[in-house]
Amino acid sequence: MSSVQTKLPVFDLDQIRASLVRDDILAAVREAFVRHARGEVVSPVPGQLLFNDPPGDCHIKYGRFHDGPTFVVKIAMGFYENAALGLPVNNGLVAVFDARTGATLAILQDAGWLTSWRTAAAGALAAVAGAPAVVTSLGIVGAGHQAENQARWVAPALGTQRVAILGRYRDKADRLVGKLRGTGLDAMAVDTVEELFGACNVVVTCTPSSTVVVPASVVRPGTHIVGLGADSPGKQELDPALFSKADVIMTDDHDQCVDHGDFSHAVRLGLAKSDTDVSLGAVLAGLQVGRRRDDDITIADLTGIAAQDIAIATLAWERLSGRIGASDPTRSTGKL
Amino acid sequence: MSSVQTKLPVFDLDQIRASLVRDDILAAVREAFVRHARGEVVSPVPGQLLFNDPPGDCHIKYGRFHDGPTFVVKIAMGFYENAALGLPVNNGLVAVFDARTGATLAILQDAGWLTSWRTAAAGALAAVAGAPAVVTSLGIVGAGHQAENQARWVAPALGTQRVAILGRYRDKADRLVGKLRGTGLDAMAVDTVEELFGACNVVVTCTPSSTVVVPASVVRPGTHIVGLGADSPGKQELDPALFSKADVIMTDDHDQCVDHGDFSHAVRLGLAKSDTDVSLGAVLAGLQVGRRRDDDITIADLTGIAAQDIAIATLAWERLSGRIGASDPTRSTGKL
Repeated sequence: MSSVQTKLPVFDLDQIRASLVRDDILAAVREAFVRHARGEVVSPVPGQLLFNDPPGDCHIKYGRFHDGPTFVVKIAMGFYENAALGLPVNNGLVAVFDARTGATLAILQDAGWLTSWRTAAAGALAAVAGAPAVVTSLGIVGAGHQAENQARWVAPALGTQRVAILGRYRDKADRLVGKLRGTGLDAMAVDTVEELFGACNVVVTCTPSSTVVVPASVVRPGTHIVGLGADSPGKQELDPALFSKADVIMTDDHDQCVDHGDFSHAVRLGLAKSDTDVSLGAVLAGLQVGRRRDDDITIADLTGIAAQDIAIATLAWERLSGRIGASDPTRSTGKL
Repeated sequence: MSSVQTKLPVFDLDQIRASLVRDDILAAVREAFVRHARGEVVSPVPGQLLFNDPPGDCHIKYGRFHDGPTFVVKIAMGFYENAALGLPVNNGLVAVFDARTGATLAILQDAGWLTSWRTAAAGALAAVAGAPAVVTSLGIVGAGHQAENQARWVAPALGTQRVAILGRYRDKADRLVGKLRGTGLDAMAVDTVEELFGACNVVVTCTPSSTVVVPASVVRPGTHIVGLGADSPGKQELDPALFSKADVIMTDDHDQCVDHGDFSHAVRLGLAKSDTDVSLGAVLAGLQVGRRRDDDITIADLTGIAAQDIAIATLAWERLSGRIGASDPTRSTGKL
């Protein structure tokens, strides 16, 4: 072992943010889903470390594309009492390594933003994959950080300016509406889930709920729902009965969604057969359809997959290291 | 999530090396074994990523002491064809995080040396734990990097200057002997395992072997053997029959050693009962004995535990960050 070391490149959030544009992330995450569906991603079971005092968690996701030049280890923390201390709730880093030598290529000190953007991209891709021909308005259930993300990424992907926000607390929803209007969106807050599903035919749910927030009764034919919140055991957003009404069920990963996605609740209750889902990646690749008829009810159940992390971290590293050229500066609307 | 970030401290190998002395590592690793034996360490199953072309592996070990202020994630790579390219075989880093906020405290860019030193410390502690009253000479089976480490750490721990080296290739053993003589040790190379065990009553094995390198027939009463090499499934160094002759069997971790240590081969062949081992940590704490009589044959089977990594990384970070004072400079013999 030699003691001669090259200086480890550490990129901070400002550098990471400046290196990426939305279109490139969408393309990279789309490819990640397609390759995941093809079985071209190596992603072992994530590691987990839980903390009680104060409560917190650490998740370690890692993996690579089969022929990829890099592999990625993401260490992501959530410490929920930090907010009261004026500290960030999310911490962590993403490390990028050379898959041919094991050398450490870079540390991306992303403060959770790469995860946030890859989730936003997944929502946008899944929304488009099942959207009806004419989108009346985008609905968002949730008023937190990811709700803001989804509104800002999904609305342009669907080609709509109209966004309705349903939050648990009206004041928080109003604050988000104000922010979204500042970005040029035609945003409004609504008070009930009935109102939301009355106005919108594409709805993204992104809450930390552990009980149903979307009853099957409010969902009209022709609606597409993207469920993002149920990403670990115990979480739930969508009425299991919705899955028995759905014409297409897309999942980001079959096994994960059967284990702990919204789909899992329906499968356990016998309201959907476990083999009735199609892979989001296969839909994005054009091998399956996300919607057949205008009055279909369609659902995309997203639990988050390592391929997304691998894709966005590799993209960021390629940009930051100059391996591939900078993004086209004329695509300024895609700035993060 | 805030975009205000503090600069992430990255410490390179020279800084890490300068911050530590041998005595402090021995004390920290001793405590790690004791706490591991007491069940005070949280260390989930390590992550693993394997590479075929070229061959390599990535191991992710992580955990914390129950009441510890930090937690540690170690990402360690071995790419065995790097040597031919003039690149280091071992790569990786150790990340230290705050267990109360999840904040990243430091990246230790250790190039595998923290693992190397914590393994050296384990060898020294295990050698002393079972050594007979009078050590004739220290024997080392192996002539690689860890063999050098063991000679340099174990001999002073045992209070001997005499070291005999048995390598697979005599020229490599001779080169190691030359290096060790340069450090003041009375080193010699031997050609056979009979010769080694004839001259030495404490022997450390540290080879990558997958077959027996120490036959039971060569081991005289009064010998203490520390087996370091069998650290993953498929590896083996010690004759399983040795375990039926042993008066004391110490293990660093019962479950790991029954699964893939040298002990595992003896247990599977019915040559040792799986409950006949005592914990190295319990011996170090004085709760068990590592040797009863001068003519006992004793074995310490070491597979490597996360507690060692947590201990040495936390120690390094505390020194580097100034949380605890620098090591006593008068202990210069302990410089790494």
